[in-house]
Amino acid sequence: MAVYTIVSADDIAAFISEYDVGEVVSFKGIAEGVENSNYLLSTTQSNFILTLYEKRVDADDLPFFLGLMDHLAHKGINCATPIEDKNGNILKELCGRPAALISFLDGLSISDPTVQNCEQLGKALAQMHLAVEDFTLSRPNDLSLEGWIKLAASCEARADECLLGLSEIIHSEMDILKQNWPNNLPSGIIHADLFPDNVFFLNNQLSGLIDYYFACNDMLVYDVAVCINSWCFEKGKSFDKKKASAIIKGYNQIRKLSDEELSALPLLCRGASIRFLLTRLYDWLNRVEGALVKTKDPLEYLSMLKFHQNINSVSDYGVDK
Amino acid sequence: MAVYTIVSADDIAAFISEYDVGEVVSFKGIAEGVENSNYLLSTTQSNFILTLYEKRVDADDLPFFLGLMDHLAHKGINCATPIEDKNGNILKELCGRPAALISFLDGLSISDPTVQNCEQLGKALAQMHLAVEDFTLSRPNDLSLEGWIKLAASCEARADECLLGLSEIIHSEMDILKQNWPNNLPSGIIHADLFPDNVFFLNNQLSGLIDYYFACNDMLVYDVAVCINSWCFEKGKSFDKKKASAIIKGYNQIRKLSDEELSALPLLCRGASIRFLLTRLYDWLNRVEGALVKTKDPLEYLSMLKFHQNINSVSDYGVDK
Repeated sequence: MAVYTIVSADDIAAFISEYDVGEVVSFKGIAEGVENSNYLLSTTQSNFILTLYEKRVDADDLPFFLGLMDHLAHKGINCATPIEDKNGNILKELCGRPAALISFLDGLSISDPTVQNCEQLGKALAQMHLAVEDFTLSRPNDLSLEGWIKLAASCEARADECLLGLSEIIHSEMDILKQNWPNNLPSGIIHADLFPDNVFFLNNQLSGLIDYYFACNDMLVYDVAVCINSWCFEKGKSFDKKKASAIIKGYNQIRKLSDEELSALPLLCRGASIRFLLTRLYDWLNRVEGALVKTKDPLEYLSMLKFHQNINSVSDYGVDK
Repeated sequence: MAVYTIVSADDIAAFISEYDVGEVVSFKGIAEGVENSNYLLSTTQSNFILTLYEKRVDADDLPFFLGLMDHLAHKGINCATPIEDKNGNILKELCGRPAALISFLDGLSISDPTVQNCEQLGKALAQMHLAVEDFTLSRPNDLSLEGWIKLAASCEARADECLLGLSEIIHSEMDILKQNWPNNLPSGIIHADLFPDNVFFLNNQLSGLIDYYFACNDMLVYDVAVCINSWCFEKGKSFDKKKASAIIKGYNQIRKLSDEELSALPLLCRGASIRFLLTRLYDWLNRVEGALVKTKDPLEYLSMLKFHQNINSVSDYGVDK
């Protein structure tokens, strides 16, 4: 939630002159996006988001991310779309950073999604999964099992600084995930970070998905697991079965989850909990005093993990198999 | 540079329904304003800034600030204007904070103003000074001599933590200011914080002044002194006489500075240096580790103070009396 790179009026005027988007009339840093610097740019023609990619994003991944957004937009999916400059380039440089001009997507993210919002989310997620079937680039999920093993190892010695006993909880959960993590479920490109922050609504209709900077190739149903965690727990604690049921119902309307995918869901939800527990724990253990970005609470995901550990079957998510 | 109060989509929709400005289509926290939370709000009709006033602003001062902006707008001065709700109110409440919806002003602030920009600034400042002559509310300048005496006293014991000898420098400068600070110069409402951040340009023309939250009654030429400090020093160090000359030239085109005002300028520039040196020093000494807001460098203003201490006459600012 910060602007890391300050872009001057001269810099932005020179940058925008390389595009066919009119003249700059306003340019404001926005408090959005933990990883990058984002500006809202208005020109005589339209509104745009200008993103400068900071060091936490691997520049080699940018053609994948921007290509994916471009592909989705051409498939009619509502999403922010990279704009081509006069020479057809979408990935550019500004103030020594990789940068891209992105179309502005109307809508607001909501902090308290309704059951109806959850159904719309499931539908939009499945539409995205189908729309990327013919996208030719790929990117491995650095934050799946292999990545968690590395993160868990790097956090193990100090995890108990966050909560006494946390190291042991992570250790035994990782053993289970290593032994049982599926590898035969339908795969494709997933969003991998579809929190309510990244979904816009307008007049109570879903108006688009944003922030594709964790997108990667993985099991499609893992995206559903990420959404169940981030959309269905009241302030990270009590589980709302109706919301989970609605996500799956919406998803099934567009792409029907197989029995195998549904059976794997409780385990995938545990994996999704461990993924955010570990990255948050890593950030928490390595937080810098005085940093601009607030560290998110790792333990929010511990309570979700415990919930999923006690799930007996997918019917506990409100699904009738 | 932060958003302190998070406003939900439901909150903003309910708030905006009290205005006749259309439906909300977008709502983003912006990284602007050290004191308050600011959001850029787009509706089906127009763009606005929504400001939530945080604790550093005294709520009792808000009718003055908002009334002033309203007055200036009605006088044809380009500035952000508070919007009335359906009942004619401009000062409202949102998420437990005083809040106001303000018109969106096109333009960009520039970090490297040219001599031409400085002349435009001087002109706009004088236009503002004339436009507020018949504004009926008043507000004392808490950050003039009396305020500096209090700030200096509260910083004195620890000022040398910032720079060895700083306490003595402040002490002797305050003695000079106490003995010589004028009280018979033309007064009125001043902006008091007209840094380049707070001035917008569009197509190299000044498009408006923003951020009136330090405005108060004081000597008009003190506003010129604040501008000389904040616009005419290259990165807080070398002084650009042409820029100071241009500010005064522009100002004189609209409201001619008297000989008394010009003669007092070197001392007022010293006062303006002390004002920002002391507030920044206070913030620096009382900084909170981990705070969202970066502390500004107090010593930038020490070098300006030293420059003004060595000024022999106003001709050193490029003015021919």
